[in-house]
Amino acid sequence: MYEVEMKVRADHSAVREALARRGADRIGTVTQRDTYYDAPTRDFAETDEALRVRREEREGEGRAKLTYKGPLVGETGKTREEHETELGDGDTMDSILDSLGFVPVETVEKERERFSLGEHTVTLDGVVGLGEFVEVETEVPEGEVDAAREGVARTVESLGLDPSEEIRTSYLGLLLEGTR
Amino acid sequence: MYEVEMKVRADHSAVREALARRGADRIGTVTQRDTYYDAPTRDFAETDEALRVRREEREGEGRAKLTYKGPLVGETGKTREEHETELGDGDTMDSILDSLGFVPVETVEKERERFSLGEHTVTLDGVVGLGEFVEVETEVPEGEVDAAREGVARTVESLGLDPSEEIRTSYLGLLLEGTR
Repeated sequence: MYEVEMKVRADHSAVREALARRGADRIGTVTQRDTYYDAPTRDFAETDEALRVRREEREGEGRAKLTYKGPLVGETGKTREEHETELGDGDTMDSILDSLGFVPVETVEKERERFSLGEHTVTLDGVVGLGEFVEVETEVPEGEVDAAREGVARTVESLGLDPSEEIRTSYLGLLLEGTR
Repeated sequence: MYEVEMKVRADHSAVREALARRGADRIGTVTQRDTYYDAPTRDFAETDEALRVRREEREGEGRAKLTYKGPLVGETGKTREEHETELGDGDTMDSILDSLGFVPVETVEKERERFSLGEHTVTLDGVVGLGEFVEVETEVPEGEVDAAREGVARTVESLGLDPSEEIRTSYLGLLLEGTR
């Protein structure tokens, strides 16, 4: 399955009204604090890799995960090697990575409020240091990616937003651009 | 608290009889499979560090942990920095470490049967590739370490074993010696 998503800057209060008018179902809110690391041996920004410790809080319950994302592979260039495991304790993982010479390069902290709207998931992201964004996404088999992108763009429009203002850079990328 | 322990080679069936005679309580059995890693940047055997993924099975329940042990520090040279966190999935951690350039150097697989005997814990270790060992241990405050070592030695003797045959090398060290 492929994730098809579109992200734009958006004022959340206006989008919330549009979601209510269209009868979207509110799924819930999650807070994520992601610490991205660089390796002692290589610059992950250059190698297109990422190593992340995520702390997540959902309805008062916290958990932590370690995620590695490898560089884009294959002909389509849309697939990455990805490994993710839950952690008993995120702070301990930080200490282990620190001891091994990994360096925290950036922290991305966001509150995500998710809605279900037809076949799409609409997420209102409030990102510390960046502001408010809306992401519309769905998952489809490889052959349906183009049609799904059309559908996602129509949903973006239906929320009063402009698909041509799509931001393809990740929040991590936007934060790193800001500090350069 | 300080861990005071003594490990000797021993035939388990003879020690089990001695434990029964002395009325030791059987605590339980745990199987541990430890994979030790070397860093892409440094040789942990040289730097006196260790990075380990442990898979443990206790009464049919499995779990995994990631542990980092730093080099000996301080004046007594008995203390190490140590960080340990539970993992949702040990195999995924292996994949992440592999992607980050860490190399598995040795696997230590053992079955540990634990008994409680007075103030001591007696562990019968069956280590794959090394054979049978018995470990007697206790935990005491810093000032009581010497007295505790005496006590541990007496318990070793009471099990029909010879404290002068103490093995101070870790199972990892013994396995690495064997392959050199």
